[in-house]
Amino acid sequence: MMNQRIDDKIIDRLVEISGEKSVLTDDIERYLYDETEELVRPEADKNCVVVRPSTYEEVSKILQAANELGFSVLVRGGGTGACGAAIPTKPSVILSMEKFNKILEVDKVGMMVTAQAGVSLFQLNEYLDKEAHELYFPCHPGDEGAHLGGIAVENAGGVRAVKHGIMRNYVKGLTVALPSGQIVKLGGKLLKNNMGLDLMHLIVGSEGILCIVLEVIFKLHPRMEYTGAMVASFNNAEDAVNSVVATQISGIVPLAVEYMDRDIAVKTAEQISGNWPMNDDGKVDIIYMLESRAEDELYEMAEKIDEIARENGGLDCVIAESKKDQKNILDVRSAIYEVFKPIFVDSLDAAVPVCHINDFLKDIDEIADKFATTSPRVGHVADGNFHNFILRSEDGSTPDWADEMRRDIYTAALKYGGTVTAEHGTGKTRKAYLDMQYPREVIDIMKNIKKAFDPNHILNPGVVVD
Amino acid sequence: MMNQRIDDKIIDRLVEISGEKSVLTDDIERYLYDETEELVRPEADKNCVVVRPSTYEEVSKILQAANELGFSVLVRGGGTGACGAAIPTKPSVILSMEKFNKILEVDKVGMMVTAQAGVSLFQLNEYLDKEAHELYFPCHPGDEGAHLGGIAVENAGGVRAVKHGIMRNYVKGLTVALPSGQIVKLGGKLLKNNMGLDLMHLIVGSEGILCIVLEVIFKLHPRMEYTGAMVASFNNAEDAVNSVVATQISGIVPLAVEYMDRDIAVKTAEQISGNWPMNDDGKVDIIYMLESRAEDELYEMAEKIDEIARENGGLDCVIAESKKDQKNILDVRSAIYEVFKPIFVDSLDAAVPVCHINDFLKDIDEIADKFATTSPRVGHVADGNFHNFILRSEDGSTPDWADEMRRDIYTAALKYGGTVTAEHGTGKTRKAYLDMQYPREVIDIMKNIKKAFDPNHILNPGVVVD
Repeated sequence: MMNQRIDDKIIDRLVEISGEKSVLTDDIERYLYDETEELVRPEADKNCVVVRPSTYEEVSKILQAANELGFSVLVRGGGTGACGAAIPTKPSVILSMEKFNKILEVDKVGMMVTAQAGVSLFQLNEYLDKEAHELYFPCHPGDEGAHLGGIAVENAGGVRAVKHGIMRNYVKGLTVALPSGQIVKLGGKLLKNNMGLDLMHLIVGSEGILCIVLEVIFKLHPRMEYTGAMVASFNNAEDAVNSVVATQISGIVPLAVEYMDRDIAVKTAEQISGNWPMNDDGKVDIIYMLESRAEDELYEMAEKIDEIARENGGLDCVIAESKKDQKNILDVRSAIYEVFKPIFVDSLDAAVPVCHINDFLKDIDEIADKFATTSPRVGHVADGNFHNFILRSEDGSTPDWADEMRRDIYTAALKYGGTVTAEHGTGKTRKAYLDMQYPREVIDIMKNIKKAFDPNHILNPGVVVD
Repeated sequence: MMNQRIDDKIIDRLVEISGEKSVLTDDIERYLYDETEELVRPEADKNCVVVRPSTYEEVSKILQAANELGFSVLVRGGGTGACGAAIPTKPSVILSMEKFNKILEVDKVGMMVTAQAGVSLFQLNEYLDKEAHELYFPCHPGDEGAHLGGIAVENAGGVRAVKHGIMRNYVKGLTVALPSGQIVKLGGKLLKNNMGLDLMHLIVGSEGILCIVLEVIFKLHPRMEYTGAMVASFNNAEDAVNSVVATQISGIVPLAVEYMDRDIAVKTAEQISGNWPMNDDGKVDIIYMLESRAEDELYEMAEKIDEIARENGGLDCVIAESKKDQKNILDVRSAIYEVFKPIFVDSLDAAVPVCHINDFLKDIDEIADKFATTSPRVGHVADGNFHNFILRSEDGSTPDWADEMRRDIYTAALKYGGTVTAEHGTGKTRKAYLDMQYPREVIDIMKNIKKAFDPNHILNPGVVVD
């Protein structure tokens, strides 16, 4: 039933619900792909129609129609995902959240924001900067075009997860449309809620297969007056990792701790016409982002990080004194993905326990040797999460061995009790590896949970376990 | 099927699986109740048998037998719960976790502990103090007899949730026996995992209805060298709450922020032969627990808290200089529940958004007036979570209006977007109020999730949605 074509009957119904202007049948290319790597992403089915509802009631009616007429609904946020969850692989009604773009409330007392799911991260950050400057939203997955609903259902991570955690820690309330069309509120402006099973935390990370998120309530944090960035360089990955571990154990809590192969940093810096502050012989750089209520505490942290780095073989340590220098470092980190995208097939997202990072990185190097390639990487090192690149062939194509290499790396991560995907999500591109990580019975439970929410399988077909 | 009596056939099978010494049919009184308030808790069904398995394989076999023979299995941890989840209300095999009491690993690099579910909080804290003093487990639900498996499935809160959050934030991995008997690992020593639906986060807070937790992996934190406690006094709740809010917004992050009615503090202090440090005319005291890497930062925090308190009508502020004075304050806070238990019917656990705390507290006072009673309270004020007491009649019985008062308070909390239970759990005692908070369809989804894990309904019957 769910493979049925999107025909005039369906389109007529959508027009009836949302009006002609809100239903697009032509020029819908920009709704068909997300940020998933070109050589990895599935092909989009062109038999799609885009509907852009303006009210929650319209969303309910579209879902009711989907159950009645038997069509698939694919929820479209900012299109910044990296697991193909937003690419229609079957004929689908693409339900774009773009009109749900209102920030509804910033609660300065409880430090929470309530916003519609289609608000972008950029929009939120800009709003807070201007209207509630004392507060900010630390979580920062790469692309600020991401919608708030999207980063909630994808349980996004990003560089700033070290101090305040991943998205799950920020999500306090969700207003969702269940697949039946009923709209319900889960959680709230609450720091604690133990009533019933926690469906909200199940929805976080569920990639849109359980319901459509209409509104989010996110925790905000007081903006710290003093921020800083510094880079420490090392001869090799092992020294760098050991230094990061020692810093964490010392009780210092940076906002972010990022690992970069020097080659990647330098090449990226060249591309964005910036320059990279490190010019020693190091092979690996670690970026620290710091924040503090007090200036002297910031400097004390920086000094301590420097000291620990040197104790662990650190070569040099550069503190970005000016806002401009800080920005340059962060811009380089942010640009890596775009700069390297044309030369890699896939950017992996495995994570391992922190105590096994060095073993895992050595395994990856050996695996790369086996395939006579290299695997450049950046990573959220304090989280044990690395984005290793599988490089393209010289002619730009996918090497024959790409999937074998990918599976070898996943096998290595899982051997250490790791995970295939730490933050980018399962979606459509990592679904095939689900049984490497979970036994059949666990996957079956996930499938039955999907069924408990969405008995007719109308939402986001083909994602995670559907 | 699930109401069947525990007969010889079942007992024989348990003896076959775990050995005669591990099966108790007599003197099982101590396995029948938990810490739920005496006048609120359900009556235990005496037709129970206790089995104390020593291996995970035995747990699997018991679950398989339960599916085959059709008996209910009630998981028993430390028996410190406060929602009746561990009280058998039907004939049951009580599966005690007491023999699973090993701490398996403290990973000092990744700062994680792996332990069997039957390890008590006391045992963990003592172990860390001696064997890994540089690390600690901040989460502290009242009773240290609680088992680690229990605080994970109950998503326990406690006084120290302000800085590091509730149990959900600490739970990184679980090894569980599914109701089928299959043993699976979810999560791990991982800070991030987005593979598949997050069953681990669904199990946190599920109160034992989905699976039996065998092992936990909890995040630890570096032990801070400097700790402090201070008490600020206020004329009324409103000033106290406003002061707490202003402190939070300032960016100070205390470990704990506790609200106490002065009467409660003084009465409790008298009972435990300590004395209460505040002797002004204040009606409400706020305890702050602080920790810091640096002594000067600790003092700076305390000074700032003092300053903010005075700006918000604070009367006095006392810093506990010595460890002994700190301990006294915390001992008083810890003893409240036991001291007041004989005079209250119920200790509520509602929470509201921080911005509505004052409205909510005023509503509670009005509700108490309506029933010509008072409702003394303590509370995790920074979390918006208050334990309001419903007092007994003078003869020690439950007043006729007790449930009406309870429902009025829940209605007030829900009006502000709050929750019936923030940390004590739904269990058997708050299940009746589930439909005040959630519409039927949400409860049905919860029921179907239970079914996805436990199609024969063998685990913890009568809890949450079963």
